[in-house]
Amino acid sequence: MTRVYAAPMSDVDFYAARMDRAARTAADAGLAGLIVTPGPDLVWLCGYAPPVTERLTALLLAPGRRPQLFVPQLERPDAEKAPGAGALSLSGWVDGENPYAAVAKQLTPQGRYGISDNAWALHLLALQRTVPGLGLGALTEALPMLRAVKDAHETDLLAAAGAAADATFEEIVRLRFAGRREDEVAADLARLLREHGHSQVDFTIVGSGPNGANPHHEAGDRVIEDGDMVVLDFGGLKDGYGSDTTRTVHVGEPTAEERKVHDLVREAQQAAFEAVRPGVACQEIDRVARQVIRRAGYGEYFIHRTGHGIGVTTHEPPYMVEGEHLPLVPGMCFSIEPGIYLPGRFGVRIEDIVVCTETGARRLNNTARELRVVA
Amino acid sequence: MTRVYAAPMSDVDFYAARMDRAARTAADAGLAGLIVTPGPDLVWLCGYAPPVTERLTALLLAPGRRPQLFVPQLERPDAEKAPGAGALSLSGWVDGENPYAAVAKQLTPQGRYGISDNAWALHLLALQRTVPGLGLGALTEALPMLRAVKDAHETDLLAAAGAAADATFEEIVRLRFAGRREDEVAADLARLLREHGHSQVDFTIVGSGPNGANPHHEAGDRVIEDGDMVVLDFGGLKDGYGSDTTRTVHVGEPTAEERKVHDLVREAQQAAFEAVRPGVACQEIDRVARQVIRRAGYGEYFIHRTGHGIGVTTHEPPYMVEGEHLPLVPGMCFSIEPGIYLPGRFGVRIEDIVVCTETGARRLNNTARELRVVA
Repeated sequence: MTRVYAAPMSDVDFYAARMDRAARTAADAGLAGLIVTPGPDLVWLCGYAPPVTERLTALLLAPGRRPQLFVPQLERPDAEKAPGAGALSLSGWVDGENPYAAVAKQLTPQGRYGISDNAWALHLLALQRTVPGLGLGALTEALPMLRAVKDAHETDLLAAAGAAADATFEEIVRLRFAGRREDEVAADLARLLREHGHSQVDFTIVGSGPNGANPHHEAGDRVIEDGDMVVLDFGGLKDGYGSDTTRTVHVGEPTAEERKVHDLVREAQQAAFEAVRPGVACQEIDRVARQVIRRAGYGEYFIHRTGHGIGVTTHEPPYMVEGEHLPLVPGMCFSIEPGIYLPGRFGVRIEDIVVCTETGARRLNNTARELRVVA
Repeated sequence: MTRVYAAPMSDVDFYAARMDRAARTAADAGLAGLIVTPGPDLVWLCGYAPPVTERLTALLLAPGRRPQLFVPQLERPDAEKAPGAGALSLSGWVDGENPYAAVAKQLTPQGRYGISDNAWALHLLALQRTVPGLGLGALTEALPMLRAVKDAHETDLLAAAGAAADATFEEIVRLRFAGRREDEVAADLARLLREHGHSQVDFTIVGSGPNGANPHHEAGDRVIEDGDMVVLDFGGLKDGYGSDTTRTVHVGEPTAEERKVHDLVREAQQAAFEAVRPGVACQEIDRVARQVIRRAGYGEYFIHRTGHGIGVTTHEPPYMVEGEHLPLVPGMCFSIEPGIYLPGRFGVRIEDIVVCTETGARRLNNTARELRVVA
């Protein structure tokens, strides 16, 4: 299933092939086509990244037909500059016109279409109103594999983004933690990610002491103290592909309990990593990590799923979560990030991006997972 | 219709009153309630601004019932800190659970609900699947007035944001244009907006010479030359409320044609401004501006609608566009921004935010609209 492109290939040919494959994959899944709105799907399919607004922009893909991109007329000059624009027909619509009617004319009556997860309700409801009987399924459910399996070039880009995040970690642990505010350390993480080639920073979580026990705490004005556990979870986009890694460090010597909890999370992360191989269901990765933590008596403190996909976004399908029966396929890239969160006290999370290979998994983050002591 | 709050009022009481009013307005419009997802509606209703993700966060409002906010359990600590949290019931759901079933239990069977324009297809389709017969309408269409009419406090905040944008303009025209790149001037605009109190910069359009003829051109590497028209369109959020203003300046002395086109846009903007009064349909504002430009023979070069609402976003309903029959109401705040775009040559746009009053309109941008000559 791993797709390798012969380089060099023109942008137009590259995106034409990708859109063609997407349309055929949709047909194989019983869909009449795909309705793609601004966001990661559109970037991935034709390289176009317009603003997401109440003005409809939609790419229509159907097998055997030239891709058609509907854009507000005043955004047409930008659309024409997209790297994949040469592979599609552009249709501009003017304020005051009804763009849904124009799209509707191109849809197969009673057809079922996949639509971008993040398409706006405003647009979706207008399409449903314009085309009675239109079947729609969110792409995550209708075509979960569309962007899930990365080709060799994409995996290389993800590996480079991961290496840049690793380099960021190796530099941050040499800086001072005690006496500085979380948001100061977070600013350093953002600066380092950019220095290591990231064009976009999506998150820089610094959860010290009790703040680490809230997995979605970002970074606040708490001053980090000697004796704190500190969760560092950071990532963004480098050359259009994502990074996302977490390490938990300790300011000064940890207690025996802190070591024990950290070791347990590390063991869970390792077990889940070792469980990755083609054909295993996504939920199995979650179960393996959770079982390690549950058996040690900390099950109630692991309060989120074990992982998520990564690609042109830092957060996408497939999800490593109970109930996700999708089988792993070589080329899938996703996070493995179990954690334990002790309310009011501290949290530990360890996260690597991994790629499923023919025989198992390869990590795209490779900093040491042992508990690092910082100053 | 202008709503004035007695100050001081606690955050909780303020948001409780706003949510209660929204639920009653929904009932008056024949809706069973509102389903509000992350974004401007949620910020406006309860002050909560979570990330927009594939994990469902939804606020359910229905008349006579306590507002209920469904959140991913791991985001609950953040939700609890929202200023309006004290006025609602929080329900956390855990990864692997089905949050749509939990929401569905609280919906009136066969009821029709308004849903945020920007709710994701992923969530909307899951709700439709879970609740057969569920009626949904995007809020812009189902309840277009929900956030459209600003109270006195909101208008004050928009006026302050407008004044900050005006101060930015007065400073930028004193800086050098000729010989600098568009994106350098754009960076100055962003810096000045922040210096004048903006916490968020949404756009800094610098369209010089032929780039000005593309209304959505942002700012590129073109070096501005003597003799260029330059469209400057910039704005963002200050204290949670938006600014958005456009002035077109000229580097050195303009030609007679450039002056003529600029005067024409100014005349159209003034005519539209003078047409604002309660009861006039939004589309009438567009028609008035367009007629001035069309009569002078430039109709085909005015390629966008005349305006959009502004509030907790820089871009929202109501729209001043053909087909929008909604009547203006005192307290509505929106842009009036006609333009003329001569392909390959130059563009002119003049934009003010205005507020509809009992007797007409008041501008929230007040820099001179005459063509300004810069160096």
